[in-house]
Amino acid sequence: MQILHTISETRAFVRQARARGQVIGLVPTMGYLHEGHLELMRRAKDQCDIVIASIFVNPTQFGPNEDFGRYPRELERDAEMAGSVGVTAIFNPPVEEMYPPGYCTYVDVERITEKLCGVSRPGHFRGVATVVTKLFNIVQPDYAFFGQKDAQQALVIKRMTRDLNLDLEVVIVPTVREHDGLAMSSRNLYLEPDQRRAALVLSRGLERAKQALKEGERNAAEIRQLVINMIQDEPLAAIDYVELYAYPDLEPLERIDGLTLLALAVTIGRTRLIDNAILEV
Amino acid sequence: MQILHTISETRAFVRQARARGQVIGLVPTMGYLHEGHLELMRRAKDQCDIVIASIFVNPTQFGPNEDFGRYPRELERDAEMAGSVGVTAIFNPPVEEMYPPGYCTYVDVERITEKLCGVSRPGHFRGVATVVTKLFNIVQPDYAFFGQKDAQQALVIKRMTRDLNLDLEVVIVPTVREHDGLAMSSRNLYLEPDQRRAALVLSRGLERAKQALKEGERNAAEIRQLVINMIQDEPLAAIDYVELYAYPDLEPLERIDGLTLLALAVTIGRTRLIDNAILEV
Repeated sequence: MQILHTISETRAFVRQARARGQVIGLVPTMGYLHEGHLELMRRAKDQCDIVIASIFVNPTQFGPNEDFGRYPRELERDAEMAGSVGVTAIFNPPVEEMYPPGYCTYVDVERITEKLCGVSRPGHFRGVATVVTKLFNIVQPDYAFFGQKDAQQALVIKRMTRDLNLDLEVVIVPTVREHDGLAMSSRNLYLEPDQRRAALVLSRGLERAKQALKEGERNAAEIRQLVINMIQDEPLAAIDYVELYAYPDLEPLERIDGLTLLALAVTIGRTRLIDNAILEV
Repeated sequence: MQILHTISETRAFVRQARARGQVIGLVPTMGYLHEGHLELMRRAKDQCDIVIASIFVNPTQFGPNEDFGRYPRELERDAEMAGSVGVTAIFNPPVEEMYPPGYCTYVDVERITEKLCGVSRPGHFRGVATVVTKLFNIVQPDYAFFGQKDAQQALVIKRMTRDLNLDLEVVIVPTVREHDGLAMSSRNLYLEPDQRRAALVLSRGLERAKQALKEGERNAAEIRQLVINMIQDEPLAAIDYVELYAYPDLEPLERIDGLTLLALAVTIGRTRLIDNAILEV
């Protein structure tokens, strides 16, 4: 497996593959890979001849008080894991390669970014949309793979890809969970054992909502309150948001009668975790 | 010559050319072609196997009180002119093809857009950067051609192309002028005969600055004042801006000792005209 550090080597690598008529898959990540990432890579490998995984902790999607500095980075470990599921090359650029001096262009997706994580993390989706546009233009993949765990991010990237006429297909892959239900995340690493137990309130909150729905509850405010109550029962958990929106347009709703995104952000200690479910009646 | 109205026919057209190994040139325009556009197309034809000219009056780059509604549109005339200089196809999409319902993604270039036309026309360069990104992604040209007449636009597009890693080369072509010096512009059409005469203050202002520079003047404020005085002598002309900036970074300057952009925007009647020169000592 090849490790590419510059845009020009990556372009050359891709150009060769394209000349051989190969279908190219891209899996953008920030590294510190877990089973969720590996699932994206397996899906990419199933569908494409060559798979490029990018590993880049993107500074523009972190706020000034967020965890950019302490975000875990371990390239050797990541390369081994990616290789084990058939990734062809890793694109691991230094920050200055992606944002050279004088850099000043950003991609803004409006409306769907003005809620959920877009409120808690101002500028986050601007950073995501910008770096993903750049990665798409550098690699020019046929398919790009993202996890459903970041539900709003997946919608933003699909919207941006359609709006800017980027010539590829965005594939969203279901969330991978630990045996006890916790959604896989590189940030789970930050959790102390008691926090790790407390973090189960997210997936249990989603299950509680599904159960209420199964029992016939259709009132969005009622379901939201059930989830809030469950999370508030956990002393280590602090709610950032618990929201229900029509899916995929993220319009507000009162009654659940179509696809509905239930999205949670909860802070456990210093660690902010997100999870979501798409409810269907 | 083919006229393409949809993104999918354009992609198919380009894909065929690419499969034949042809080099593709793009000339983005808003139509109502003049000799300046034809010069871009000739340059494209010299350098590329096939040339696509887009003709699209882009609503997102016009302000609410600007001339989007009355901007001249005459496709048949344009097609004939483009055909006469060897353009292979025209891409002329309806507005809904470029901005379908729910559209919400924009490209922002910061800093260099915060002066000159960026001040007079808020949102203008956001609209330009967005539509040009879309056109680049739809056509995927090897080269794209723009006129030096829109000096700040040329810088914005070069910056954006580099920052977003768009895989093409932007070529800037010198301004084409009428026999008496007036820079070619579709908006010259709006001018009544007396306004047409008054419009010569722009090019004469640029000449005045070059002459002062030749005579040894290096003080930017002095040169600016000479140009302002000359334009103020014309009763039909109202200055929007007269500015000198270091080129290409558009940093403020006191003394002229390297490449310097002298940029003018002047309103004659209801018609806002721009012109510029790159001064060199």
